[in-house]
Amino acid sequence: MPLNAPDQPVSRHVSQQRLQARLDTLARFGATAKGGVDRQALSREDALAQAQMVRWGHELGLKASRDPAGNLFLRFEGLDDGLPPVLSGSHLDSQPTGGRFDGVFGVVAALEAVQAMAEAGHRPVRAIEVVAWMNEEGSRFAPGMMGSAAFSGARELDEFLPVRDGAGIRVDEALAATRSGLDELLAPEGLSPVVLRPLGGPVAAYVEAHIEQGPVLERVGLSVGIVSGIQGKHTWRIEVLGEAAHAGTSTRAERKDALMAALAMVQAMAQVFHDEDDVTKFTVGRFEVEPNAPSVVASRAVFSIDLRHPDTDRLNAMSQQVQRLCTEHRGPCEVVVQRLSAADSLSFSADMRQLAQDCAQAQDIATLELPSAAGHDARYLNPLAPSAMLFVPCHLGITHNEAEYASPHDLWLGTRVLADMLQALTTASSPESVT
Amino acid sequence: MPLNAPDQPVSRHVSQQRLQARLDTLARFGATAKGGVDRQALSREDALAQAQMVRWGHELGLKASRDPAGNLFLRFEGLDDGLPPVLSGSHLDSQPTGGRFDGVFGVVAALEAVQAMAEAGHRPVRAIEVVAWMNEEGSRFAPGMMGSAAFSGARELDEFLPVRDGAGIRVDEALAATRSGLDELLAPEGLSPVVLRPLGGPVAAYVEAHIEQGPVLERVGLSVGIVSGIQGKHTWRIEVLGEAAHAGTSTRAERKDALMAALAMVQAMAQVFHDEDDVTKFTVGRFEVEPNAPSVVASRAVFSIDLRHPDTDRLNAMSQQVQRLCTEHRGPCEVVVQRLSAADSLSFSADMRQLAQDCAQAQDIATLELPSAAGHDARYLNPLAPSAMLFVPCHLGITHNEAEYASPHDLWLGTRVLADMLQALTTASSPESVT
Repeated sequence: MPLNAPDQPVSRHVSQQRLQARLDTLARFGATAKGGVDRQALSREDALAQAQMVRWGHELGLKASRDPAGNLFLRFEGLDDGLPPVLSGSHLDSQPTGGRFDGVFGVVAALEAVQAMAEAGHRPVRAIEVVAWMNEEGSRFAPGMMGSAAFSGARELDEFLPVRDGAGIRVDEALAATRSGLDELLAPEGLSPVVLRPLGGPVAAYVEAHIEQGPVLERVGLSVGIVSGIQGKHTWRIEVLGEAAHAGTSTRAERKDALMAALAMVQAMAQVFHDEDDVTKFTVGRFEVEPNAPSVVASRAVFSIDLRHPDTDRLNAMSQQVQRLCTEHRGPCEVVVQRLSAADSLSFSADMRQLAQDCAQAQDIATLELPSAAGHDARYLNPLAPSAMLFVPCHLGITHNEAEYASPHDLWLGTRVLADMLQALTTASSPESVT
Repeated sequence: MPLNAPDQPVSRHVSQQRLQARLDTLARFGATAKGGVDRQALSREDALAQAQMVRWGHELGLKASRDPAGNLFLRFEGLDDGLPPVLSGSHLDSQPTGGRFDGVFGVVAALEAVQAMAEAGHRPVRAIEVVAWMNEEGSRFAPGMMGSAAFSGARELDEFLPVRDGAGIRVDEALAATRSGLDELLAPEGLSPVVLRPLGGPVAAYVEAHIEQGPVLERVGLSVGIVSGIQGKHTWRIEVLGEAAHAGTSTRAERKDALMAALAMVQAMAQVFHDEDDVTKFTVGRFEVEPNAPSVVASRAVFSIDLRHPDTDRLNAMSQQVQRLCTEHRGPCEVVVQRLSAADSLSFSADMRQLAQDCAQAQDIATLELPSAAGHDARYLNPLAPSAMLFVPCHLGITHNEAEYASPHDLWLGTRVLADMLQALTTASSPESVT
């Protein structure tokens, strides 16, 4: 570092039509009636999407492998097998009522960049691995970003294996089912089972393309954003224990109503975390009660907290109040406060951001630096290797929603910048120039 | 009317041991690990319990029939087939984490009363039908008391058929499955399929035995209560429509958070319906959000309201505020307020209450008149024919809970009073004496 934009950019081989066709194909796996996608982590639909990636990789001569965390890799060999690879990708899983672009764009863009290189005759000095991280969304299994967290060593895979989804299925069971499901999908086509590789390993650099999931780029009329960093995010699981009772006979004074207690906790936090400037993001997205029957006082309530702020100190200060607020508003119930994750704000490498800007500029693409309000797998790759993220506009900032939309032109330009970045990162003659 | 307690009471044939053995047997269908019962309406467990009732009835020579609403009848023939029958029973379905006595006691007690009569050689002038009403609880399919409501004509069965449970199964589908399931259970034992009978029909009188579901009888140390009436109950289904959004990127000002709106509605109602004397019963027992994912702002929330008060005017006054309170607190979301049921307070026939007291007194059983805070199928039978309810104590008033408990001695005494009431109601020589 610093690196330069390539002289003979492979970006001219990036095909808008092929990119779109592949996004359309993947959108069929878990397609919803409203035009969105329900392809939750380690589901059958997720396996179908992975199989499709392996199929496309196979056509390009990329070797498929899978690690024990369920991360999928497609390897484009470099001249020197001994050098750490450059990784690029994102995730294939979606929210239950998710969109067609969140995550999947970054995976398809990385594949397209590799294909453009192959067509351009660029032979990388080090391997490039297209990667699809397991369970970025965290909707079926909480927390999210399990795959990248386990790969990076930030969290132990063993921590995640016993986590259950709403139907009681454990992560380790779903991992095994997806692995065998994937191989069964590939076998009839004469494709070999996906090779199992060890978790983790050295990485030379990581680049992730993604939709912005906010309205900024669209408002300023730019097609590509360079991500300065990611805002901090802390998550919790709150369990409130009350007592089931008859809705017609138990008096208010006698009740231990878990729903009313949970509700008081949520309202208290919403008030305390309220900021005039509307920067704090406080979300209770999951909320379940038991026995969930109209004429029974709830005996148990479980809810999630997702708290984010770009300022690490502010975030920590709020975070420290969660236990107290829940305890203060528990009424006659018991409460168990469990923090699931605590990620501080981070900044991406200045050299990588510069490279992104140079690659865009060389193509006459204007860019803007902007922070990411959403979390991404790049969070966990950043401590391992110089990392970068490219954003493309997302219509009206609507995301985690079936109406999510990104234009073909913007997706194409984002992929073009990605392709040249990957080329630059694999043109340098020695690994030292990257790490 | 008035009727007198019988001279040769059949109650001396009521067996405490047999009653307990039958309650124990039925408690196995849907038994939970914590000693309770999960036997929701029209489930496999419900069919198993019905089959067991048919089996016991068969041993006594009772004819089994089932109406299109899924109510099950076991008929003890009277001397005159042309007279309207006396009905006695309750329900076999339970809450998801229910107890071993709620409902099932009234059905088993009616069977025991009939068996005592048969053993005593009492031949009734009119038939007695032991009845198990379909879906009293209303937890799997809302509202409750579907079977007795349809039987009485208070509601059309057709209204209930399209109602779906949480898994999307409709009432008509579950009715068909239970009917065929029941016949399949009976066939291997050489028992004929349960005969289908028309819905409704004339009823001479109705008596329902039930646990109190409140603490009064236990506190005053009495084994039998005579129910004066049932408090009014109104129920609603509230649907809040917001918009899914990303927990990290969407600002509070932009959000249409269905969970936060639903929560504001519930809190507003809890405040407005708060009474110092703690007589109003306001319960939100069901609460569900979609997509129910930790990092997605909820696009939809559905919750139930169960509102009760013994004073019909007070209940109606509160009831009229539900729509307004939900609308006022909807924030940026939409809200659909649907009233599912509206039952006023009612009083049972003075003659029937007197008969209950006479039958108890003749056995030296002290009684107390008390209102029912819970709703019961007797609500719907009351307009059709003189009706009565007998309560037995329920430990600490705990009900709709796996810890629900009633003592064998109290259950036995309640059944003894029931048996003599049914005897008195079927000794009179003409139907006019009852209706």
